[in-house]
Amino acid sequence: MNETNRPWPGLFISFEGIDGSGKSTQARRLSETLRNRGLNPVLTREPGGSPGAEEIRALVLQGDPDRWSAETELLLFTAARRDHLERVIRPALEAGRVVICDRFADSTRMYQGRGGLRDKVDALHNLMIGVEPDLTLLVDMPADAGLSRAKARATDEERFEDFGLALQQQMRDGFLALAQDHPNRFRVIDGNRDITTVATEILDTVTPYLPACPA
Amino acid sequence: MNETNRPWPGLFISFEGIDGSGKSTQARRLSETLRNRGLNPVLTREPGGSPGAEEIRALVLQGDPDRWSAETELLLFTAARRDHLERVIRPALEAGRVVICDRFADSTRMYQGRGGLRDKVDALHNLMIGVEPDLTLLVDMPADAGLSRAKARATDEERFEDFGLALQQQMRDGFLALAQDHPNRFRVIDGNRDITTVATEILDTVTPYLPACPA
Repeated sequence: MNETNRPWPGLFISFEGIDGSGKSTQARRLSETLRNRGLNPVLTREPGGSPGAEEIRALVLQGDPDRWSAETELLLFTAARRDHLERVIRPALEAGRVVICDRFADSTRMYQGRGGLRDKVDALHNLMIGVEPDLTLLVDMPADAGLSRAKARATDEERFEDFGLALQQQMRDGFLALAQDHPNRFRVIDGNRDITTVATEILDTVTPYLPACPA
Repeated sequence: MNETNRPWPGLFISFEGIDGSGKSTQARRLSETLRNRGLNPVLTREPGGSPGAEEIRALVLQGDPDRWSAETELLLFTAARRDHLERVIRPALEAGRVVICDRFADSTRMYQGRGGLRDKVDALHNLMIGVEPDLTLLVDMPADAGLSRAKARATDEERFEDFGLALQQQMRDGFLALAQDHPNRFRVIDGNRDITTVATEILDTVTPYLPACPA
């Protein structure tokens, strides 16, 4: 596989998974490995990832958890994604770089799509974003294992990470269903192994997609 | 005409028009008159109008005018409108009150719909807002007269008010075309007369729609 079927010369990789799946650690590891190989990857995250999007993230996540309705939150996250896409992701892809993004639209489909909003999430994505990663690495993890790991490193953004086991299970099942629905771009990685084993499998998965290294 | 065809017991009135048309003054006058008649109207404005929406307004309007793209700005204003609608407008309408809103979705159609974005503006409105005023009072004013008046009271939010005559003319024509497309809810008021004459015509226009006064 090479980049000729993609809409940009670069490679857009997203990491998805439940809280505590290890996706952020793996995204960082992959970025470091690619840098050591002479590539110049962009490691970024959502929500946030550009100065404007980080301001919107702060507006959403600070204060009373009920200050925004689900629909308003969805609109704010979509505004943040649009800014991130325009200011960071797309320019890097057009410059031929590898973009590694810790969460992207699939997380919105899962988390903001609850409570009957999934159709609105999809319609809003198609209307205002319209871009999918070339490759989505779903770092899969049993719900209870992810929950224990997430709880161990809980931060002041806890409200964004919802620690219920039932929700965690629902999100895991949802991500696996998404992967089945989009087999061309999803790869499911068993995250319940030691970090280096997981990182090696991820690198092997990504390598066929990589742009040629600089001479 | 009475309220029986409306989706709420209250009355939702928006004021629209170009900068300097006098719509904000007339909205305030109408609110005072209704209050003197024993009604308990809500006078509000967009962008903003609820605490969350005012925070979003500040995020959009502060800083470098180019910090947000047209699409991101549209999403942020739609998030603000959703919050305003949920927290202020709809509860008041469901309580039977008159809501007087200085600018609503028609302003977004005009200002954010420029540059080929009108279809996106309409689709986003249908998807995430889906509500129109019961009555929209378009305070009409020749472009050059509005421009002179707007320039005379320019504030630090000048970037939101764009003072070019060509744009002002384009916006006036656009509002008049909207009024023609939606004759059931639009009423065009000639704003180029003295304030009291305009206010009297607006009150006469609104009166048939008013909820019964409290006993």
